[in-house]
Amino acid sequence: MTPLNPPKRLLFGPGPSPVHPRVYEAMSRPIVGHLDPFFFQVNEDIRRMLQVCFGTKNEFTMTISGTGSAGMETAVTNFVEPGSTFGVFVNGVFGERLAEMGRRHGANVVRCEKTWGETYTDAEAEDFVAAHKPQVVAFVQAETSTGCYTPGDGIARAARKVGALVICDCVTSLGGMPVRVDEAGIDIAYSGTQKALGCPPGLAPITVSPRGVGFLKARKSPSVSWYLDLKLLLDYYESAHRYHHTAPISMFYALRESLAIIEEEGLETRLGRHKANHSAFVKGLAGLGLEMLVAPEHQLWTLNTPKVPGGVNELDVRKKLMADYGIEIAGGLGPLAGKVFRIGTMGYGSSPENVELLLGALKSALGR
Amino acid sequence: MTPLNPPKRLLFGPGPSPVHPRVYEAMSRPIVGHLDPFFFQVNEDIRRMLQVCFGTKNEFTMTISGTGSAGMETAVTNFVEPGSTFGVFVNGVFGERLAEMGRRHGANVVRCEKTWGETYTDAEAEDFVAAHKPQVVAFVQAETSTGCYTPGDGIARAARKVGALVICDCVTSLGGMPVRVDEAGIDIAYSGTQKALGCPPGLAPITVSPRGVGFLKARKSPSVSWYLDLKLLLDYYESAHRYHHTAPISMFYALRESLAIIEEEGLETRLGRHKANHSAFVKGLAGLGLEMLVAPEHQLWTLNTPKVPGGVNELDVRKKLMADYGIEIAGGLGPLAGKVFRIGTMGYGSSPENVELLLGALKSALGR
Repeated sequence: MTPLNPPKRLLFGPGPSPVHPRVYEAMSRPIVGHLDPFFFQVNEDIRRMLQVCFGTKNEFTMTISGTGSAGMETAVTNFVEPGSTFGVFVNGVFGERLAEMGRRHGANVVRCEKTWGETYTDAEAEDFVAAHKPQVVAFVQAETSTGCYTPGDGIARAARKVGALVICDCVTSLGGMPVRVDEAGIDIAYSGTQKALGCPPGLAPITVSPRGVGFLKARKSPSVSWYLDLKLLLDYYESAHRYHHTAPISMFYALRESLAIIEEEGLETRLGRHKANHSAFVKGLAGLGLEMLVAPEHQLWTLNTPKVPGGVNELDVRKKLMADYGIEIAGGLGPLAGKVFRIGTMGYGSSPENVELLLGALKSALGR
Repeated sequence: MTPLNPPKRLLFGPGPSPVHPRVYEAMSRPIVGHLDPFFFQVNEDIRRMLQVCFGTKNEFTMTISGTGSAGMETAVTNFVEPGSTFGVFVNGVFGERLAEMGRRHGANVVRCEKTWGETYTDAEAEDFVAAHKPQVVAFVQAETSTGCYTPGDGIARAARKVGALVICDCVTSLGGMPVRVDEAGIDIAYSGTQKALGCPPGLAPITVSPRGVGFLKARKSPSVSWYLDLKLLLDYYESAHRYHHTAPISMFYALRESLAIIEEEGLETRLGRHKANHSAFVKGLAGLGLEMLVAPEHQLWTLNTPKVPGGVNELDVRKKLMADYGIEIAGGLGPLAGKVFRIGTMGYGSSPENVELLLGALKSALGR
């Protein structure tokens, strides 16, 4: 085998995002065992900073040993029981994925559809939830397929009225936009490490409200998944430290370091940085004649979705960016295929220099 | 947060095992995207060397984005259908875990029990399989809880007679003992990276025979798990490269490097090294008056289970090893709690120097 020699890439797609050298360095430190007190201390540090990022006091805040989609599956397998009604807000790929997971778990899935790139009014959420009275609802706070933000307050309020648990996908908001778990009334929120947290992919942070924990404890049948069973994971990470699985220690080191960087920067400063760089980027895109898919007030600060201008082949643009600069961006998915670019300004990658670089490269690739 | 400063540990437990500096170095190289052609090339390199380690020509050889237990759950969720009869050979913790996963997936689980530390005769396997005619059988080739090896030929032969698929857990044998997937007649084998492959935990290699692939393709209902759905993973890793999840790139780099090291050493040489160091260690243990739990012909070369001598508190010994040398070993689980030590000689850790070190440290900790 030849020596591993990764090509130079500037990761400005929807994730993974660029990683700070400190995170790589921490990730390569010597491992300890998965039952070593040092590992549990690392896990405690992670928990404390995840609480800050999630905006929660939830004691039950931990990390799943899989990527963001494993976090989604953890939420579904633990909280969506077979035969229950699962109300999913579907305005993009990840809402679709939630619905599909619910279906596989034997739930009666009801969907609140919305044009991709748009979000829900409080009244729409209220009407949908009141009509179906689901046991659990789920929504995607930061739709990575569309660049649309849904804070979730209205959905959570409607859900509380019918006693439903609220699942929130914050894969592309955690560490880059306000998640506000406690304030919004979210019961379960999960994320991934490779977006605005600025860490390589491999782990899924998750938090569960006391109400969610109550549900877990009262649940009669175990979740279908043993690997993602939160009751067993609780026994592992909490005081008992009962062996469950061998946690990916190196990824925990990496996550801890990325959270240490967030602590040093301060979450509010970090969110402000994301907002400022997103705004500057959108302004620059307008200067290039590119319109945004999402209305300004619903745009993600982490992921930008300019429309592909008429007469432009988006694949050609992406190929040119990669060939000329090693820049990775992504195209649209599903109904948005060929119609939008997806360009990340998140984590370590969200900087004024990168905004300039991206705008210059796009100008060149678009021939403007 | 204080800077990450892992304590020095000598990992001689049942895994994770010591990691070669080259593997840490590779793991910390800059990531690329999960749809980057370079990533798929890394994946191809991994596949080719995994085929060597598994002893298979199976095209369907890939890596699951979770730890060893995610590999187990992948096997169960894809191949054990609700209502089917699932025959599990239970002679330790990981056989128990397979049975538990089968139960959660709605299978009719039948168990072939054996005293922990022992394995099955061909006749026992034959009688059990003939009596229950399961659709799928599963066994643990290397029982990490007992140190017992079960090659699996007799089990696979019996299974073929009733048309059952054969699942093999080779978490603690892959890269350190013969796995022989094709020769033994195994349909699905999964492993973890943190044992004899000498890589940090985080991924689960898996291989599926053409017969297994045929079952997958004919399967009417999807697996309950979306994250571990092999049909979707096949679309991602194979030529279509359809986005499924964001693979943990850094872990793939690490696994590739650990396999490059195996390629350079040569698998046969490596297995011979494991056998020789295990034999020397067992001989040294006998010199200290320690008997082995497992009969010589069934002992793992990767993980040794000497019995705790009468009058010795095993926890005290482990604490002393940790305090005096930073050596991690493990105790027994379940019926073997307090009765055996579990001491790994695997991967990068399997060396004559480490055998000497372990024997000297044990002599001191046991006061012999």
